[in-house]
Order: sequence, then C-alpha cells, then structure tokens
Amino acid sequence: MGEHATPVPTATRTAGAELHVEVLGFYARQMRLIGELRVPEYVATFTEDGVIDHAHRGERVVGRQAMLASIEAALPRYRGVVVRHWFDHVLVEEIGDELHCSYCALVTKTDASGAVALEPTYTVHDVLVRRDGALRTKSRTIHRDTPADGAAS
Amino acid sequence: MGEHATPVPTATRTAGAELHVEVLGFYARQMRLIGELRVPEYVATFTEDGVIDHAHRGERVVGRQAMLASIEAALPRYRGVVVRHWFDHVLVEEIGDELHCSYCALVTKTDASGAVALEPTYTVHDVLVRRDGALRTKSRTIHRDTPADGAAS
Amino acid sequence: MGEHATPVPTATRTAGAELHVEVLGFYARQMRLIGELRVPEYVATFTEDGVIDHAHRGERVVGRQAMLASIEAALPRYRGVVVRHWFDHVLVEEIGDELHCSYCALVTKTDASGAVALEPTYTVHDVLVRRDGALRTKSRTIHRDTPADGAAS
Repeated sequence: MGEHATPVPTATRTAGAELHVEVLGFYARQMRLIGELRVPEYVATFTEDGVIDHAHRGERVVGRQAMLASIEAALPRYRGVVVRHWFDHVLVEEIGDELHCSYCALVTKTDASGAVALEPTYTVHDVLVRRDGALRTKSRTIHRDTPADGAAS
Repeated sequence: MGEHATPVPTATRTAGAELHVEVLGFYARQMRLIGELRVPEYVATFTEDGVIDHAHRGERVVGRQAMLASIEAALPRYRGVVVRHWFDHVLVEEIGDELHCSYCALVTKTDASGAVALEPTYTVHDVLVRRDGALRTKSRTIHRDTPADGAAS
Repeated sequence: MGEHATPVPTATRTAGAELHVEVLGFYARQMRLIGELRVPEYVATFTEDGVIDHAHRGERVVGRQAMLASIEAALPRYRGVVVRHWFDHVLVEEIGDELHCSYCALVTKTDASGAVALEPTYTVHDVLVRRDGALRTKSRTIHRDTPADGAAS
C-alpha cells in the first residue's frame, strides 16, 4: 500500500455472493442478446479488443468488428431455430482486476414446431473486466467436451 | 421522503445477492411442487388473483381456482412421466414493490424407463410480490421460443 | 445464550446468499472433477466416512475407499463420452452444523462426435459438513425421477 511497497504475487480469490450474482446477471443479459440474434449488442458486451477462441476448432476471432463478421457469417446455421445456451457450475475467481470465470454450457436449438435438438456440450473459460463500471468479456475460450480417450462409444 | 414529497418515477434496480438467492429459492420450491404434481400447493405459490398467461397459445388463466382447474385438466398429458423445468439466466429487477423476473426454461419429461424427452424451450416473465412476508407469483407470462423468421430449419 | 440455557430443538434455516454461493462453488468444483474422471480427487470431496446412496437401485456405498472402487468399476460405462451433471433448483438449509442440500440433476453424455445423449433425471439430497474449513459431502442420496403412477407413457 506504501509508495515503495514490494509487488506481491497476484492472489486468486473466489468471488463473494454480490460479485457472483453480478456475473450471473451479466451472463443472463449477454446470452439473451445472442439468443435473440441481437449481434451488435452481443458484441458490445465484449471489450473492443475482445477475443473469442474456439479452441476445439483452432479458430480465434479478435476484436468486435471481426466478431460481428464471424457471427453474421454463421447466421445461416441459425435460420429457423432459436439457440439457447444453458450454463451451469459457474466459478468466478478474482485475479487482480480480472475475473476468471469458467462454466459448463449445454446448447439447444428449438425450431418453429417446438422440437429441440442438442448441440455438443462445452466448457468455457472467460476473462471479464470492468469498463466504465460495467462488466465486459475480454476473452472467451471455448472447449468442446471431448472424451479423453478420443473414441466414440 | 417528506410529507409533501413529489412522486418520482419508479426506478428499476437489479436485485442484490440476498434477494436474488431468495428468488431462486422460491423458484426451487415452486418448481418442485409442480414437478411432484402437488397442484394445490403449487397454485398457492401464486397470489389469489394470480395470472398465468400462455402467450404463445393465447391462453390466459386468472385466479387460483381457474389455475387449479386448468392444470388438473392437463394432467393426463403428464401421466407416466416426471416433468422437470430447468431455469437459467434468471434476472431479477426490483420495480417499486414488485420483482420483475425473467428466465429461460427447458422442460424435460422422464418416463418410467428413465428415457428423457425434451419439450420446447420457453422464455418466461414473472411478476413476484411479497404477501405476509413470503414471495408469491402475481403473474407469469410464458413465451415459447419461436424463430424470428418463423420457418423450421 | 446463558450458562444454563435449556437446549432448544435444532432449527432449519435457509442459507443466506454467501453460504448459498459457497455451496454452488463446491458443487461446481466437485462436478468438474467427476466430469474429468479425476476420481480420487472427486472422492476426496466426500468425508472419509461419506455415503453415496443410489436409492433407486438399492445400492449404498460407504467410505472413500468403497466409493473409489465403485466408481472405477463403473468407468467402462463412460468410455468414449464426457458426462456432465446439470444442477437446478438447489435448496440449501442449515440444520445445526450440517447443510441439507437438495437439487434436480440432468445428466448428459457427449461423445467424440459431439452427439449428446440424455441420461435419466434425478433428485438428489446431500448432507454437507465443514471439515478444516472446507465443505465436504457427508452423504448423497440419489433418487431417479420416477412417475408416481409407475407406468411409462
């Protein structure tokens, strides 16, 4: 705290309830936006230089403009369906000014008849930061759940 | 605050952690009741004049007595299955004395063999109020997730 | 509070937000461990004399060593898939020094191609205790969701 304090290693601390619930609210709003295909608003929940890393297919998108283009290019896949992302087991760790969040995600696609198809499941690691008081995603790394032994049953 | 204070527009405020967790607990109990087909107890978690609005099929049920009749009429659909409602992305906003809650819902039906079928996904908007200290649902508006472009893939 | 206070019956109290979020964090870590088949670490989240009671099939496993053996014997069922447990409607009640937690669980199996199969749904009752500051599962009772009328639709 003093002027000449020796830097200390950055500690990891699990978020308390207020911060945890704030993060859940951030995700609730962010996932509604993508679910409603409000792509520019979704992209605005990332930092300007935010990164989405689809680790399982070696695809890394950097910056809001590139995200917007990438998602819009994928929109035909979502024609005729509503996509929902179901999160569980969210962990929120404070490391310095960043929040390191991880969670499991189940993805559904509901068509006009109400039929629901399951996409693969994922494990996601996010880094969130605060910009002008609001949480933003600085990076999102998405791993498709893949069996360790690599063989389908 | 003064005796002659000018009324101010009602502000919307996102619930803090204690209230958010209380709402999650309310939903946990309410959804267990309907999952166990304890219909009178489920209906009692609504206000006496509570409303369930199935917006996607233009069906609006008003008051506990009508709810009870409506749900009991639908029970044959649930013969031989356990229905579970899975909520995610719950947002809780305080507006005056009311809580405006919204969430995504996935609905499963598990039969006696353990096979699970998926119902459509929904987006739900609730208004909760406090009666004698306990939360109650004043209104529930249920929208089935429907693609904006209206065409099944 | 006095020296000679008469013992009072143990009250049940719903957990506040901090404790509720701590329990969710415990489950997040515990379920990641089993999802990644880190079985010894998973078993270490139970007390030494912990119990897993598969009530629906009359199977009761007592103690970490027996759990480890039981889970390892079941591993061939999980060859080629990633198993995820999705919790919802978690209720946490404090009763004396114990936490009585209950929740609904949906179980998915994702294979190497990304295809997701649904296992049955479950309702689970846990007793958690604190050991050296950390939460541990003292007992877990698992009920497969089974229709009251016992007949598949």
